[in-house]
Amino acid sequence: MTDTPPVPENPKRRRKVVIVGAGFGGLTVARGLAKADVDVTVLDRHNYHCFQPLLYQVATAELSPADIAWPIRHVLKDQANARVLLGAVTSVDVANRKVVADTVTLPYDELVLATGATHSYFGRDDWAPVAPGMKRIEDATVIRRRLLMAFERAELAADPAERERLLTFAIVGAGPTGVELAGAIVEVAKKVMPADFRLIDPRTAKVILIEAGPRVLPAFPEDLSNYTKAALEKMGVDVRVNTRVTHCDAAGVDLEGGRLDAATIVWAAGVVASPAGEWIGAERDRAGRVVVGPDLSVPGHPEIFVIGDTASVKRPDGQPVPGVAPAAKQMGAYVADVIACRAREAVPPPPFAYKHQGDFATIGRKAAVVQLPFMNMRGFTAWLLWCVAHIYFLIGVRHRIAVAFKWAWDFATFQRGARLITDQKDQI
Amino acid sequence: MTDTPPVPENPKRRRKVVIVGAGFGGLTVARGLAKADVDVTVLDRHNYHCFQPLLYQVATAELSPADIAWPIRHVLKDQANARVLLGAVTSVDVANRKVVADTVTLPYDELVLATGATHSYFGRDDWAPVAPGMKRIEDATVIRRRLLMAFERAELAADPAERERLLTFAIVGAGPTGVELAGAIVEVAKKVMPADFRLIDPRTAKVILIEAGPRVLPAFPEDLSNYTKAALEKMGVDVRVNTRVTHCDAAGVDLEGGRLDAATIVWAAGVVASPAGEWIGAERDRAGRVVVGPDLSVPGHPEIFVIGDTASVKRPDGQPVPGVAPAAKQMGAYVADVIACRAREAVPPPPFAYKHQGDFATIGRKAAVVQLPFMNMRGFTAWLLWCVAHIYFLIGVRHRIAVAFKWAWDFATFQRGARLITDQKDQI
Repeated sequence: MTDTPPVPENPKRRRKVVIVGAGFGGLTVARGLAKADVDVTVLDRHNYHCFQPLLYQVATAELSPADIAWPIRHVLKDQANARVLLGAVTSVDVANRKVVADTVTLPYDELVLATGATHSYFGRDDWAPVAPGMKRIEDATVIRRRLLMAFERAELAADPAERERLLTFAIVGAGPTGVELAGAIVEVAKKVMPADFRLIDPRTAKVILIEAGPRVLPAFPEDLSNYTKAALEKMGVDVRVNTRVTHCDAAGVDLEGGRLDAATIVWAAGVVASPAGEWIGAERDRAGRVVVGPDLSVPGHPEIFVIGDTASVKRPDGQPVPGVAPAAKQMGAYVADVIACRAREAVPPPPFAYKHQGDFATIGRKAAVVQLPFMNMRGFTAWLLWCVAHIYFLIGVRHRIAVAFKWAWDFATFQRGARLITDQKDQI
Repeated sequence: MTDTPPVPENPKRRRKVVIVGAGFGGLTVARGLAKADVDVTVLDRHNYHCFQPLLYQVATAELSPADIAWPIRHVLKDQANARVLLGAVTSVDVANRKVVADTVTLPYDELVLATGATHSYFGRDDWAPVAPGMKRIEDATVIRRRLLMAFERAELAADPAERERLLTFAIVGAGPTGVELAGAIVEVAKKVMPADFRLIDPRTAKVILIEAGPRVLPAFPEDLSNYTKAALEKMGVDVRVNTRVTHCDAAGVDLEGGRLDAATIVWAAGVVASPAGEWIGAERDRAGRVVVGPDLSVPGHPEIFVIGDTASVKRPDGQPVPGVAPAAKQMGAYVADVIACRAREAVPPPPFAYKHQGDFATIGRKAAVVQLPFMNMRGFTAWLLWCVAHIYFLIGVRHRIAVAFKWAWDFATFQRGARLITDQKDQI
């Protein structure tokens, strides 16, 4: 090597923005920076962006994983200033401004942590194998396998008590995920399965929705909660509010009121933030979310932003901003704006203000509840609005047509198109 | 217990037919017995029937597993005399006429073994983990994961030699599966991926199709083999005939001509029958297939039939009946007829005679070869016929519409709709 002088750094070099996580928040930041004079790197553990609101439909054999997932690099393929890398973050070197992943180390000028949340067992992580939650594609296919396998095992069971246990499905937590799962599972049992079995009657299956609080869908107005409970009960779901789960094992759950034998347990009861707060040593709330400032940056670190389910953000009335997709997208758009302003040395935008756009939850065929800022809806109209809104938010015309077709077909025929038990780790 | 006399057996009780395996052969037997006065039990390790001819499209991210699979019990739901059970056979008690599975023991009057074939490494089973074959849904998703992961790892690789190795795909065996895979992989590399990557150029990927024999598609006429080789080479596949693989490992393959560094190896070189012959202690040929009599029953055991890829059946000219879906279906229909005749005490049908209906292989966009009894075809017309025939053979209108839509869309846009790396066991 000859002794050449170091290349002088371009004083106007482009700022490096690293975005960790390509969920609703991270992807919105990346897209919001399309016209900014910065280099964007999106790092994710998976090669795809997953549309989490429809995960329960993968778990109940209505949709295939590919119907609700897109390769991240395909979503950003036309954005010349963005690149996508696959890797899992192991630490962040805050002092030297570097993200360290298992595959790569990335220096940054601005860092956006948008790594989401996972399910929380409130300190009882040993329940995880018997009561899977539903946050990732793999979670949904595990639940799908257990759901379908329960009917298969029941068809083979000689003992009536064991058959009953196999046909009992316990869902813990009655937020939107729990409600949607309970409604979908009871429809599978009562409408989809009966013609296919000879020895068991799938209509005798019991679906039990267990909620520790006093009502289902606690984030919704009380009349919609009451409507949802009544609608679920009419469909055949056993809704138990004010009931706490004290123990889970492979054979069932212990409730405050007694034992419930159930072969399939799904956990939809609580979430905890990703460990992003630990990576950067920041202050966190009880759910592990990073407490951020008015511009969503970490106090003392204006170059690090935390958004989405990993951020603890308050509304002006002191209520927390909810962990929903529209909130993550609003934070993402805001942070993109802040970074773009810095890049062109413009005045930064005013503090982040969350606009609540509404809440949706589907209950079953022709039934949903919708809370909008100006009105509440329920029943068939709400269900149609739910369908249209979810098709609209899917990425790309191909996915929209494919999902709309499957919904229309299966609505008309009472079928489910993805009833595959693959990768049988849970052996019978 | 009081001392009651045993219930007298109904002298005209319905015969019990047990069918093991719900591939093309087994399912055809079950359906062919719909009107026979027998009790049919279909036993399979999986809950679905898989349309194997399109497995390579799952492996190359065009279709989702659920697009080419149907729950067996759903296919047979309207057939009152058939039931479906999930279980893997462990042995057959020939003397007492019982099938023993991990989940259940089934007595039979007639037994049909239709358990197919798996890939054969010619005694080198240690190559299986590095060179997966493609017979089951899980095999196809393993290959899909490795294919997509190779591009992701190449994008992260700093060393040019390693990048080249990661972008080298070796396919061993140039029968229809190898040809179809090679064509699909080179299309993914040259047409689908380029816009999505920033650091690598996926068009530099090398796809090498390795065949020990003197030509690709050995079962086809020589002019179609030559056309296929030329078409593949025009697409960018490196076709190496008369080349034997002497060793496979995680870093590549040893060929007779030298070493080939390749991160992804797919095995499409040979098949071996399922162990059904061992279960019943029957005479087998070199590929493990059971040698059956003119009515497809096992010599000395008229109550046991073996069909499909597990049976060794000769044509009148001494050539073996090929291991293709139409052959399995013809054998299935024949055996159903034999069993139905026995049930109504009618004269059995004449010996089984295979009618060869033709061979198909697709090469890529707008190119395929088709050999029919009355003519051969190649090019665009053959490709269109291939598409129409495969849509036609899918089960159910829902699957036909969904697959036709995906093919049309992806043909127009050069996309692939199922580019998901799930269940990352092969960590980077």
